[in-house]
Amino acid sequence: MQLDTLTIIGVGLIGGSIGVAARQRKLARRVLGVGRAHDGVNRALDLGAIDEASLDPEAAVRAADLVVICTPVDQIAATVLQLAPHCRSGAILTDSGSTKSDIVRSLDGNIPAGVHFVGGHPLAGSEKQGVEHANGKLFQDRVAVLTVTEHTDAVALQRVSEFWQQLGSRVRVMNPDDHDRAVATTSHLPHLVSSVLASLLVEEVFDLAATGFRDTTRIAAGDPAIWAPILLQNRAAILNSLKCFRASLDSYERVLANEDTEALKSLLEFGKRRRDALGN
Amino acid sequence: MQLDTLTIIGVGLIGGSIGVAARQRKLARRVLGVGRAHDGVNRALDLGAIDEASLDPEAAVRAADLVVICTPVDQIAATVLQLAPHCRSGAILTDSGSTKSDIVRSLDGNIPAGVHFVGGHPLAGSEKQGVEHANGKLFQDRVAVLTVTEHTDAVALQRVSEFWQQLGSRVRVMNPDDHDRAVATTSHLPHLVSSVLASLLVEEVFDLAATGFRDTTRIAAGDPAIWAPILLQNRAAILNSLKCFRASLDSYERVLANEDTEALKSLLEFGKRRRDALGN
Repeated sequence: MQLDTLTIIGVGLIGGSIGVAARQRKLARRVLGVGRAHDGVNRALDLGAIDEASLDPEAAVRAADLVVICTPVDQIAATVLQLAPHCRSGAILTDSGSTKSDIVRSLDGNIPAGVHFVGGHPLAGSEKQGVEHANGKLFQDRVAVLTVTEHTDAVALQRVSEFWQQLGSRVRVMNPDDHDRAVATTSHLPHLVSSVLASLLVEEVFDLAATGFRDTTRIAAGDPAIWAPILLQNRAAILNSLKCFRASLDSYERVLANEDTEALKSLLEFGKRRRDALGN
Repeated sequence: MQLDTLTIIGVGLIGGSIGVAARQRKLARRVLGVGRAHDGVNRALDLGAIDEASLDPEAAVRAADLVVICTPVDQIAATVLQLAPHCRSGAILTDSGSTKSDIVRSLDGNIPAGVHFVGGHPLAGSEKQGVEHANGKLFQDRVAVLTVTEHTDAVALQRVSEFWQQLGSRVRVMNPDDHDRAVATTSHLPHLVSSVLASLLVEEVFDLAATGFRDTTRIAAGDPAIWAPILLQNRAAILNSLKCFRASLDSYERVLANEDTEALKSLLEFGKRRRDALGN
């Protein structure tokens, strides 16, 4: 697959990394990047993440074969609905949002004929923000989830799948609800818990926070402007994961209060087995 | 400070790393390592973590200027009480345990005359276990806490402080209760929470666990035989930290359920500021 025009809406860490990777691998004749302000898109241009910068998304999608929306999740569905009528026939829109149910439900069956939307979520990122941290290898050996519904166009799904594979990712196709339930546990709840742990740290004991604390709270440095909409959009699944978290936390607390050494060891061993099975 | 004999009781990751570091920096004419089985001490010997291996702790402390106890925390106080009568006059015993109140309280005022105990806790470690992962730089640029009580011998404290500084650490002197309260928040609660998160992961979504989940749960791979005694010994402080954790978690849950975007952003921003202030 060689695209003529790849348009990326939102050139931060993810959009910028897609641009860098697509340019390095020559996946498109030209990569257009769209931002909200000159500063951001010019930085993306200077860093080689895109070939051309634009502040006009409607103009920038006109010639695109593939449009990837990399805005915060609460803007994705509206952006697709705004831009789809300006796309040429055969164009495919996809996104990189960490939530899928809300977005896909808003768009499913509401896209103009001849244009297709496929929901996407590359499971890659960083607590660091901005195109300055863009990295052409960000998606290498990572999983990209693509969503499928009864309205999903099979050819469009295949094209987007090839795109992510060419960026080095392994593609997993899921329905949006299964995706959201899974990432509530693997990503959103850990983010929330990490933020809670970070918020408990007082300055007097900063020097007693070693690698364990640093690892556990690294993602708490993520951008609240990106994470608040994610947590809100997926709140139903997160609140459900939180129930399981609390039930397990209650068990740990109970065995600790009861000084039940063997039961505590069993709980820790169960957690360790799961973590060991996951690998590095 | 050049010691004649440094004796390390327990040559796993921490004891082995002390041995490697002390030998590299020539802090002692000889480093004796004591284990419970031939296998372990011979591995430490083969890896160059110690000069001589022994299975007899009482014999191995006889000539020691400095004895460092690196066993699981529930064995430290008993080991000191067992070995102190076999030490020569002027010998100093210290430890590397992650809890201090229980250990120091058991020993304070109970050490034979002429021998001194100083509680210690190097804030360095790894989720990896065993002398195979010993590393002479483990303590470099890290903090080592030493405890002080009304019975602490000033010269002994100074000697142990110099020892850790020569291993590359910065020494912070604290009373045992302050230490335990602090590490409940910076280390023990995060360990517990990390284990809970790891335990929630089911195999079907392993591939959806990206760097965020991996970072947040890395310490859950720690050895339960080491961590269960730590969590139990410091349970009072941990249960107290857990109360603060739950209160904060309740706030996050409330704003999420209420879809209060601004309040959620504020909570995430507070956590982010704390984590950013901590640094990498």
